[in-house]
Amino acid sequence: MASVRTPDPNPGWLSDIALEETRSRVPILYVEGIPVRVDGAGNVEHVGLLLRGSPTTGAMNRTFVSGRVMHGESVRDALMRNLEKDLGPTAFPQLPTSITPFTVAEYFPLPGVTPLHDPRQHAVALVYVVPVTGDCNPRQDALELTWMTPADAASDAVLGELEGGRGSLLRQALAHLGVLA
Amino acid sequence: MASVRTPDPNPGWLSDIALEETRSRVPILYVEGIPVRVDGAGNVEHVGLLLRGSPTTGAMNRTFVSGRVMHGESVRDALMRNLEKDLGPTAFPQLPTSITPFTVAEYFPLPGVTPLHDPRQHAVALVYVVPVTGDCNPRQDALELTWMTPADAASDAVLGELEGGRGSLLRQALAHLGVLA
Amino acid sequence: MASVRTPDPNPGWLSDIALEETRSRVPILYVEGIPVRVDGAGNVEHVGLLLRGSPTTGAMNRTFVSGRVMHGESVRDALMRNLEKDLGPTAFPQLPTSITPFTVAEYFPLPGVTPLHDPRQHAVALVYVVPVTGDCNPRQDALELTWMTPADAASDAVLGELEGGRGSLLRQALAHLGVLA
Amino acid sequence: MASVRTPDPNPGWLSDIALEETRSRVPILYVEGIPVRVDGAGNVEHVGLLLRGSPTTGAMNRTFVSGRVMHGESVRDALMRNLEKDLGPTAFPQLPTSITPFTVAEYFPLPGVTPLHDPRQHAVALVYVVPVTGDCNPRQDALELTWMTPADAASDAVLGELEGGRGSLLRQALAHLGVLA
Repeated sequence: MASVRTPDPNPGWLSDIALEETRSRVPILYVEGIPVRVDGAGNVEHVGLLLRGSPTTGAMNRTFVSGRVMHGESVRDALMRNLEKDLGPTAFPQLPTSITPFTVAEYFPLPGVTPLHDPRQHAVALVYVVPVTGDCNPRQDALELTWMTPADAASDAVLGELEGGRGSLLRQALAHLGVLA
Repeated sequence: MASVRTPDPNPGWLSDIALEETRSRVPILYVEGIPVRVDGAGNVEHVGLLLRGSPTTGAMNRTFVSGRVMHGESVRDALMRNLEKDLGPTAFPQLPTSITPFTVAEYFPLPGVTPLHDPRQHAVALVYVVPVTGDCNPRQDALELTWMTPADAASDAVLGELEGGRGSLLRQALAHLGVLA
Repeated sequence: MASVRTPDPNPGWLSDIALEETRSRVPILYVEGIPVRVDGAGNVEHVGLLLRGSPTTGAMNRTFVSGRVMHGESVRDALMRNLEKDLGPTAFPQLPTSITPFTVAEYFPLPGVTPLHDPRQHAVALVYVVPVTGDCNPRQDALELTWMTPADAASDAVLGELEGGRGSLLRQALAHLGVLA
Repeated sequence: MASVRTPDPNPGWLSDIALEETRSRVPILYVEGIPVRVDGAGNVEHVGLLLRGSPTTGAMNRTFVSGRVMHGESVRDALMRNLEKDLGPTAFPQLPTSITPFTVAEYFPLPGVTPLHDPRQHAVALVYVVPVTGDCNPRQDALELTWMTPADAASDAVLGELEGGRGSLLRQALAHLGVLA
């Protein structure tokens, strides 16, 4: 217990044990970013989806930029940090001027409560659409970022590949953008 | 540690020690509701503010309906539960059809990071405006609910009485409603 | 020309000729309301669609509550008036506290510019989701109001029956509400 | 009357007489853009206000980017065109990915109906906050574009200089952005 009051060399970082314990106690706050390419008038031309191998099953699936909001970190900084973590330092994301998300996504450990689920935890994500103008170089465990037209992204095949039921979230984003075919 | 995996007779409830520990680890997710009275066409006529004695200083101050989202609880259920906790069972709140909040409020333990602060914790609140049509009977530690016109609520005197810097949040709500004088 | 400066016994009303001429000059501002039934916690249980015979083709199709904003009329009053016109005086609609629409719908005379079109005119509609709590008695030219679950409303059969391409708009509304299956 | 059916060399353009007549018949649809400068994380650092001489009184006042949506023109194209008209061709505005405005502004010819008024007409404006990254060179009748911090822009002196009561609209924008002091 004492350690949490000592200045932390990695603020916000939690040991696996502390994180697992925390996940059993409270919903965990996340930010998610859906990268898009826009034309000069702001029309969405492409949506970016990350391809990733599941750490548990090894299966390949698609997902958004996603990560926890750390203790002491602002929502905006968390979104910026996770965009850089997943897209690399030269993506040049254009963050929204308001931190009101376009939707709130609720993930429960048990499938079926909502279309979304996360076996590890109860998570609540603030979800944003983020235009990126630079080069994206996925880092860490993401294999690649695939750019798709809204019509291709809305296909049943792609929606079914999205992790944790995020196909419904992607359709919600495309509808919000006015590009759900 | 074993207890967190045993079925919990009070799901979502945490001991004081567990809550304090959790608060040092992650941002805590809240919902806040600003009760309003509307006319037949949806125009906001009055805003409801709770008057409460501070548990730490004993001073009287004003606040909104507010409370944690429990582990396993949906955002909508948390909002409903906290409205009933603070306004009583006959308030008949009209919850929004979409759970996208009108704004996200960030409270840091250290004053000055944002206009909002909470000495107990880093909290992130999804904030909603909620019309209520019934009788409000504040329970628990709230002394009364005061209904004010938007113009009165936006006065410097009232804004300054709001707990944790929520005066800025109330102005944001009034602006969103189009009734900030 | 003189007549437009004389006090008008039917403010906002335009002769057929004046309306047709105006439609050729500027986009016409509309409001649209999608009636919904919600449970006590604000979850959308049913969506209401009007069944109407097309004045031009005689074919039956489905639509939302819809109408022009008159000269000198506020957006909120126009929404209220059109809800009463199409749902009757006992529908008791709960108008939103903010007049920001959940989306803006653009109808062009030429099909294919957007998913929406209106052969009569270029129209721009502010679109709202409106819970109704009373009895709906469609008046005028609407034959009936049909309540459907979100899943039924999102079926291809129903979406295809919506007038002017409003199937895409209904999907956008269901996505916004978080109930697009 | 015949002329409106002949192909128009200046689509959307109306003679002074036709425009005045139309303004007496229907609300006129506008778009308004509030230019902002943001930092790398999307935080608004400065707000841009245009300084303009009133064509009627000769007095100097401040305003936003503003203009009509033409017949046959999309809301997005109208916003882009008016940004270029008022800020010049090298402003490089970042248009929003969704055309849902952050608010709807209603201007009535008679002062006092809402905080906003326009002696020429009943106008309804879709209002957007638009980050600009390039050089702004106001054209036409605007004398200059002044960049101010949110705190300076929210001062009573500046708010009072805004044309048509737009001071209330600017406060609404700053509140929406979370930077209303």
